[in-house]
Parts: sequence; structure tokens; C-alpha cells
Amino acid sequence: MNSGPIEGNAVIGQSGGPTAVINASLAGVIEGLKSVGAIKQILGMHHGVRGLTQDNLVDLSNMGTAALETLCHTPSAALGSTRDKPDIEYCKRIFESCKKHDIRYFFYCGGNDSSDACRIVNEVSNEAGYELRCFHVPKTVDNDLMENDHTPGYPSAARFVAKALMADSADNASLPGIKVNIIMGRHAGFLTAASALARNDAGDGPHLIYMPEVAFDLEQFVQDVADTYDRLGRCQIAVSEGIQDKDGQSIGAMLIQGETDAHGNVQLSGSGALGDQLANVLKAKLTPSGGKPPRVRADTLGYMQRCYPDQSPVDVYEARGAGRFAAEVAAQGNVDGSVAIVRTGDNPYESGFKRIELTDVAAKTRHMPSEFLRGTNDVSDAFIEYARPLVGELPRFAKI
Amino acid sequence: MNSGPIEGNAVIGQSGGPTAVINASLAGVIEGLKSVGAIKQILGMHHGVRGLTQDNLVDLSNMGTAALETLCHTPSAALGSTRDKPDIEYCKRIFESCKKHDIRYFFYCGGNDSSDACRIVNEVSNEAGYELRCFHVPKTVDNDLMENDHTPGYPSAARFVAKALMADSADNASLPGIKVNIIMGRHAGFLTAASALARNDAGDGPHLIYMPEVAFDLEQFVQDVADTYDRLGRCQIAVSEGIQDKDGQSIGAMLIQGETDAHGNVQLSGSGALGDQLANVLKAKLTPSGGKPPRVRADTLGYMQRCYPDQSPVDVYEARGAGRFAAEVAAQGNVDGSVAIVRTGDNPYESGFKRIELTDVAAKTRHMPSEFLRGTNDVSDAFIEYARPLVGELPRFAKI
Repeated sequence: MNSGPIEGNAVIGQSGGPTAVINASLAGVIEGLKSVGAIKQILGMHHGVRGLTQDNLVDLSNMGTAALETLCHTPSAALGSTRDKPDIEYCKRIFESCKKHDIRYFFYCGGNDSSDACRIVNEVSNEAGYELRCFHVPKTVDNDLMENDHTPGYPSAARFVAKALMADSADNASLPGIKVNIIMGRHAGFLTAASALARNDAGDGPHLIYMPEVAFDLEQFVQDVADTYDRLGRCQIAVSEGIQDKDGQSIGAMLIQGETDAHGNVQLSGSGALGDQLANVLKAKLTPSGGKPPRVRADTLGYMQRCYPDQSPVDVYEARGAGRFAAEVAAQGNVDGSVAIVRTGDNPYESGFKRIELTDVAAKTRHMPSEFLRGTNDVSDAFIEYARPLVGELPRFAKI
Repeated sequence: MNSGPIEGNAVIGQSGGPTAVINASLAGVIEGLKSVGAIKQILGMHHGVRGLTQDNLVDLSNMGTAALETLCHTPSAALGSTRDKPDIEYCKRIFESCKKHDIRYFFYCGGNDSSDACRIVNEVSNEAGYELRCFHVPKTVDNDLMENDHTPGYPSAARFVAKALMADSADNASLPGIKVNIIMGRHAGFLTAASALARNDAGDGPHLIYMPEVAFDLEQFVQDVADTYDRLGRCQIAVSEGIQDKDGQSIGAMLIQGETDAHGNVQLSGSGALGDQLANVLKAKLTPSGGKPPRVRADTLGYMQRCYPDQSPVDVYEARGAGRFAAEVAAQGNVDGSVAIVRTGDNPYESGFKRIELTDVAAKTRHMPSEFLRGTNDVSDAFIEYARPLVGELPRFAKI
């Protein structure tokens, strides 16, 4: 293994759904690389690997301190993102572009698909005997990357969900009824679970939380809501867009007919259909015979979850640190990998980073562990302890 | 006209859709009344006039300074709200409750329906020769009350919309496509118009803004989107839930079949249906022959617009001040009315309050004046100058 930096250029890209802090990771990589002498040019891919293969690159070498600081507090992917999921042929084109531009450092910030792209590019360059230091920088509001205590992007999205459900519970208390809130997370329930952070006092919502890790039964759901509504006169519900039945079939796909994406998945984000369908089921099933339907409303929290400009301070710090750590490790020798966040202290909360192998994280999905679940429609205290330090200070509301 | 305070109790209620600052108005009324010696008890109605007629009251006389301060920063209606729209018989029951509880000051915080309830209660008490000082305290995110420069609740909702569209425009730029955002406002376009505050640089969204004040034509809409998409490769759209065609027919009602409320209106809030239907129209019309549909997503900003805990500082100040002003005027003599916000300075922004007659505001709707509109799908610079000082400081994002 070569030791120390290698002469050449670096390239950075952003991939997948943007987050409130993916630009902090971009800034972190840039500032990490700037501290290393041997890097000639720091290039950014416009719209991820698609931009790289089309020579759609931007020189980031001259970004100054103030610009980097503003970048850290800018949500969404400032370089542009892509949904492309490169196969081996695509990765060979990526590799050719790297050679053409004398790129020796390849950083790709994204979720498990992006780490898989990194893994393949790394294998292609290894087979060609070309030293390309490939690093995946973690990012996903879904919090579903293996080996990570949690992932950059999740704390800010969880903060939005907690504040939204807190305010929505107060709204629901003031005009009582049944309120369904659909929350992102196609495979993992971490973000939906964060809604539990909205609770402060007895009676606060969310009263029911449904995550993909627990088999969803439509009849049981209706019964749960009816019981809560009878007991409290209102019911605030958090539902993951990724809920599935006991056979792993998507409830969203069952209830709605929608567009499918490149991976064959039905479109759940950017549509209010799942929430509206669940509201329709509740209205139909809970209307007393000869009576009026209860007041049922549904909100789909939508893209605000991943981009609303209200970052968790922990998240900005860690996202930036993860990018800087990747750059620093890459400069130390001919090594590849991904970065994982490790929790190193609980009170006060502290965290650090470790390098992991690309194969540890690539194309794998982490789910809510069973100790984070309570029954079929709630989270445990262990989850609350896990999540609370991540989201930053939350407001406290007055009650009369 | 009697001068000075009258001995007796005061009652305060909150009505209609909650806002981020309606509790600041509640706090303002309480602190205003506390400064008047003659008030015996300050009572709160649980769930508005419905609670008053059912003796569902709470004593607020002992709320201290810290509790009032926390209340000012608590979104939603802490007393509970109601959608009841009292007729004359209902108002007679309200009046009987007032007599029963020795109430001489009646404060009702809400929109134009609530001011109409105030007006009727006032007429009933006048006819009975019972001195009841009836005050409407303005509140509505729709900003549609007559005589007001703007209404408490609007600046905070406008702040949320501006920040949301700003972040969503960055998201849309990173993963280009067509994005529809449905914004509250059944009759007035002020809140949808506030999306324009999201723009800072050339190319920033929203690129198209549709308000109820401009006749909506579905074919022209599709053409507008196609033109923008061709020009920029993306298109972010702000659409009021209240858009209507040239004959005043609701586009939402035309496109969706939904529940109607007590006033016979189709349910637009608490559902993603309008956004989803517009997205479906765009997908169907903009798919090239034999090609793939463009990426079209729809978010309905939903109840977060009226409750997300991110208040405009101007809004808190004015909402609280409007409540205090109502209490102070009511204590000065046998007078009734509503409170209107008057803009008294532009640079720096300053405002004050004036008493207006209940009949000036009751059951009337203010619309966007024509000088705030530009063409068929945008707002004017005059609107931007009007709205910008209200929403507080907005973030600036980095661009690469």
C-alpha cells in the first residue's frame, strides 16, 4: 500500500435524494482535501456520475472559507444529484472519465446505492491497476446504512418530523379528529419512529406509529384508530410510506396505482395518495351507521422532510466531519472505503468516525432493531434515548 | 357611552383554523385585561363558542408572566378551537351563557366567520340592553380580512411557505423535474403569493404561481409548465388550493370528488388530491409520443403552513399587540369592534392598530389587489415589497 497522498485530481459527487446536510459533507470533503498538499484540482460532478461521464464538471478548488461555511447551511445537493444506479458498464465509463481527468480521489456521497456504485468503480480501477482511492460518504434521511450508529441527513429529517408532529398534535387537539401523517422511509422506519420525539406530556401525539418493520394489518389499523379515538376523542397517527403486510407486500402499492421508478417501485414520495387512501378507509369504516363520518385528514410530509432549512446542529457537525474524515483517510494511503458514524458518548452525546469496507455497506439495508419497537404501533424508550440527542433542542409548548 | 371599565368577567375564545400565533393574541388579551382593575375573572372558552354554551370554561386569571410568554411561542389554539358558525339562535344561547357567567367582555379570535359571530352576539346583547363589550381579534393565515394591512397568522404561514419553496426549489434543481406545491387559501391568494419570497437569484423557483384571483385554465397551465420545462429543464409551481376557472368554479372540486364541510365546500386541506390530480394531468399531457413521462411530483404543504413552530417575529409581536389593544379599548368604554393592523412605516417597517366596526369585517373576504398580480401566473414587485418585511429574516443558500 502506497503511503501518503498521491498526485492527481479529486472528484466529488452527490447522489440520490438530497438532505439538509449533504452539502455539509461536500464542504467537509473539500476542506479535508485542501489540507492535503498533493491534490491538484478538486472537481465537482454536476448531477453525480452522470455528470462525470459527460465531462460536466466544476472546479471547486478555489472555494473559500466563507463559501464553504454557507454551503454547510444550504440544504439539498448543490452540485446536483442523480437517480442513476450504475451497472458494471456504466462504472467502466466512470472509470474512463477518471483516467481522462487524472482523477486519483473519487468521493461519492449518497445512500446504499451510491456505496454500491463506489464499490464497482473501485473494483474496475483495481482490475486496471490504476490507483483510484474510492470513498463513499454516507447520506440518507432513511438512516438505513449498515455499520452506522446513524447516518448524516437523518438527524435533520428527524428534527423536522418531530417538530411537525408536535405542532400537528397541538393542531389536532384544538380541532379534534383523526389525522394521518405519512412519513418518508421506503424500507426502514427510523424517520417515522422519530415522530415519537414530539411527545412531552400525557395525551400528546403521535398516538399510533406504523413502521415497515412491523407487519401492517389494515383491519387492526382501523381498530387501533377506533380505540384511540374512543379513548381520547382524537387520534394522531404517524405512518411510514413503506408499511408492508405480513408477506412483505407494500400497502402503498396495494392501495394506490401509481408510477413506478427505474427500480420498479411504486411512487410513494411526491404524492399524497397513500395518506388519502388510508383516510378514505378510516372514513368508510368508522362512520357510525346512519351517522356522519369522523373528521379524518391526511398530510404527506413530503420533500420538506429532507430539505426544510432547520438543520440539527449535531447533523451539520457530523456530516461535515464525515466528509473531512473521508478526505483525510484517502490522503493517508492507497485505501478505499466508506465512513461510518460511531457513538462514543451518551451523556453528553459524542460521536466519531471509522473507515469501513465498501462491501460492508454497499447495497445493504439496515432496519429498526427489535429493541427499538414496542408492540405493533409504537417505539420503545430505547429508541427515544437513541434518537433524542441527534435532533437538537426541540420547543416546549404551553398547555391550558 | 359608559366610560371606563365595567365590573364583571371577561371571556376569550379561539375559532377556526389555528395559526402559529393565535395563542400570542390570547396572551395579549389576558395581559391587556390584567392591567385593567375592574375585571373579576378572565375565562377561556374550551373550543370556542361551543364550549361557552356548554359551560366548558377555564379560569385564566392566574396565568403568570412566564406562562404567558411560553403561550406566545406555542402554535395552534391552546384553548381549543371550533368550526361552528353560529346563527342567530346559537348566538342567543351564547348571550345567555354570558349573562349566566356575569360576562361583560367578550373576545373572539378568528377569521371572518368569527367576526360575524361577534357581530350577531353584539346585536343580541344590544337588543337585550345588556352591556357586553364584544371584540373580534383578527386571525387567519389566509390574510383575507377587510380593513387590515395584513392579519396575524399570515406572516408566520408566509414565512413557512417561503422557506419551504426556497428549499424545495433547491431540491428540484438537484433532481430536475416538475414539482407542484399546493398552498392553503380557499378564496385569497396571499399565502400562495408568499412563495415568491423564496426567489433570490435568476432561475430560482417558484417559476409559476397560480392564485384564486386569476382565472385558471387547465390547458394554459399545461402550456405554461411545458414552456418553463423546455426553457429551464425543470419547473417549480405554487398553486393555491382555491384556484378557480373563469366562471368561479373551483378547480379542486372539478378534479376531485371529496367530502364537503358544513358550508358545502369540498375538502381541500388535509388531502393531497388536488396536487396529485394536477400532477396526473401534467404527466398525461407532457409525455412525448412513445416516450417516458417527465418526472412530476406534488406536495401539499398541509397543516404545517399554519402550525410549524417557526414564527415570524413581526407576527408574534403584532398578534400579541392586537389582543392587548382589544382588551385596552374594551376597558375604555362601552364599545365593540374588531382590531385592524395598520402599516405606519416602511423602512424600517412599523405597524399599529385601529378599532374598526364589526360590520366592516364580518363575513367579508379581501382578495389580492390587482397591483399585487403580474400576468396570469406571477406576483408583482409591489407584492414583494408588501410581504417581505412581514416574514422575518430568510436564509440565503449557496449556489455552485
